[in-house]
Amino acid sequence: MSLDTTSPVALAQALIRCASVTPEEGGALAFLDDLLSKAGFRVERPVFSEPGTPDIENFYARIGTSGPCLMFAGHTDVVPPGEPSAWSHGPFSGEVANGLLYGRGAVDMKGGIACKLAATLAFLRERPAFAGSIAFLITGDEEGPAINGTVKLLTWAKERGERFDHCLLGEPTNPSRLGEMIKIGRRGSLTGAITVHGRQGHVAYPHRAENPIPGLLRLCSALLSTPLDGGTAHFDASNLEFTTVDVGNAATNVIPASAKAVFNIRFNESWTAQTLGDEIRRRLEEAAGTVVRFSLDLQPSNSPAFLTEPDAFVELVSEAIAAETGLTPKLSTTGGTSDARFIKDACPVIEFGLVGETMHQVDECVAVADLERLTAIYGRVLDAYFSKGGS
Amino acid sequence: MSLDTTSPVALAQALIRCASVTPEEGGALAFLDDLLSKAGFRVERPVFSEPGTPDIENFYARIGTSGPCLMFAGHTDVVPPGEPSAWSHGPFSGEVANGLLYGRGAVDMKGGIACKLAATLAFLRERPAFAGSIAFLITGDEEGPAINGTVKLLTWAKERGERFDHCLLGEPTNPSRLGEMIKIGRRGSLTGAITVHGRQGHVAYPHRAENPIPGLLRLCSALLSTPLDGGTAHFDASNLEFTTVDVGNAATNVIPASAKAVFNIRFNESWTAQTLGDEIRRRLEEAAGTVVRFSLDLQPSNSPAFLTEPDAFVELVSEAIAAETGLTPKLSTTGGTSDARFIKDACPVIEFGLVGETMHQVDECVAVADLERLTAIYGRVLDAYFSKGGS
Repeated sequence: MSLDTTSPVALAQALIRCASVTPEEGGALAFLDDLLSKAGFRVERPVFSEPGTPDIENFYARIGTSGPCLMFAGHTDVVPPGEPSAWSHGPFSGEVANGLLYGRGAVDMKGGIACKLAATLAFLRERPAFAGSIAFLITGDEEGPAINGTVKLLTWAKERGERFDHCLLGEPTNPSRLGEMIKIGRRGSLTGAITVHGRQGHVAYPHRAENPIPGLLRLCSALLSTPLDGGTAHFDASNLEFTTVDVGNAATNVIPASAKAVFNIRFNESWTAQTLGDEIRRRLEEAAGTVVRFSLDLQPSNSPAFLTEPDAFVELVSEAIAAETGLTPKLSTTGGTSDARFIKDACPVIEFGLVGETMHQVDECVAVADLERLTAIYGRVLDAYFSKGGS
Repeated sequence: MSLDTTSPVALAQALIRCASVTPEEGGALAFLDDLLSKAGFRVERPVFSEPGTPDIENFYARIGTSGPCLMFAGHTDVVPPGEPSAWSHGPFSGEVANGLLYGRGAVDMKGGIACKLAATLAFLRERPAFAGSIAFLITGDEEGPAINGTVKLLTWAKERGERFDHCLLGEPTNPSRLGEMIKIGRRGSLTGAITVHGRQGHVAYPHRAENPIPGLLRLCSALLSTPLDGGTAHFDASNLEFTTVDVGNAATNVIPASAKAVFNIRFNESWTAQTLGDEIRRRLEEAAGTVVRFSLDLQPSNSPAFLTEPDAFVELVSEAIAAETGLTPKLSTTGGTSDARFIKDACPVIEFGLVGETMHQVDECVAVADLERLTAIYGRVLDAYFSKGGS
């Protein structure tokens, strides 16, 4: 049975049936290779390595040599399905039931890639001589350590002289309805650990010991007492969450020697990891005074806050969405990080994809109608993007 | 070589050479059996059992049938020596060097038992027809779970009709100098765990989760903000120490579902475990309001606060101490718990023994001079105690 390459559902099914749980390629990139090579793309599949991490296959395809170059970015790797028997339909079976396509990656983001493929193949049939280039930059390491993925692929492309004008990343951006939300930036992420140092001793003789826990309570409370900022035009207020507090002392008659808390901050573009780390240290020192002995260990952060200022490209994508869905998408910077944080150094990047509700869950699924509408939206984006230099 | 039973050093050496790390008897009780049987004591060595704990040998000896009955209480078990090579002298060798007797148990409390034995044997030689009784109530389970030790031995003795008028427990009570301190009571101990319940989620979407850590900070801070009491005539203020805080969340992008803190309170006789637990719950409920969902788990406490009101017996022991050392001992209720918390239900109990500085440490040791002086003190106590009905 030959594949209907005009059908995003058929393409998504084919991708879902590749069991490409990070770091496995699972046949997903080979499938893209075959499809895009036949459509006239130059395809390359560099493998990147790093000691201590698995080798990862990546994928780069481009058609056209002139500008403007629109890059479609994404990933074919998926998170593990968990217990397959918990699924109503096999996580790698790609079954359609009641208008829903089921499977791991249905929305995050094999479904999004399928829509881009279907839209691109249709566009090329209509306008084989369009002026410009289309590139696919796809990694197999987005859900994993993200070390041998998009970062290295961008460097590799840059070294080969590849230049991009805009990127549309197909991560699921809509909270509950297709068309609701474009992501035009992402908050940065900074993780740190506060350790308060005391002196171990017996609870019956507290004057001979120095309990670090009250000091840790004081420092943690100080970080929570004043907001970091009030948000910016396009960003929510920066937010600090303590993710763990640990002492690990099993003896109820012993005062422990130290106590540790870990926090993660999602911050807006009024900070860099450096300025934010400095501010945290300043607040801790102020709260500690001369009483609490502490150390602060900030993890190196490769998640800066970034914003793609709304411009003609954002407008173009918004109009394509509005035309197909009747909705005016919100320009958002909420949520977790994505590979857009790396791509933003190569070219302006925005994100628009499917509805994220079921991502990473059992019975991840996407409405067939959404796949078709997203394909139509991407088709409108291609048409409009290349209308300037038209074919 | 025959043992010099008038020498507390020789007796202490013999006991230290029995490797009686809890729950091992190590020959220590057999040694007491032999010695006291020869001196005319009736000796019994009941073994107590409890599922999940090792069987423990205990020791009871009594000479005399009439009152008053003075009980000498103590334990022959010791804590482990740790790495023997870290000791200057073998932990079970009982070597004397530069006027110090070294070994595990030297002060806690084989040395104290040796002094009682030497004093008692000397007293019996002087006054074989004294009016009254002397009892030795010795366990091998004080440093361990304390389940098959003094508690059961007291019940066992009570069931056999044994009655005691006063008890002198020989734990090391002096912080740095022999004669400084008698313990006339002990604070109680109450342990509890506070768990704050939240809802797990991604740090990038805190509005969809409920971080339990700020709530735990609030509850813990509330418990520390106001003293439990101001102390009483014979007791320090009750004191709360947090001994651990644990979340155990290794993922820095995840808000955890719950967070737990454990505290231990050493409390004076203005509280019982029940009234104190009620007060803690009241303070937590007040701090939690309707915002923080928490649970409080109080461990059953068998350590009530107790006080042996200073009376003629305390006076008698104080005078014996002053006569030998020139010091007026402080009547204290500080420090950790001891088996006195059980004995106080059988008869008034006070504690006086050696200098505790090196207890539980590597190179535990006692001054030979202290062993001799403590023996003299115990001898004076026996003389004075039985002078009323004198022989």
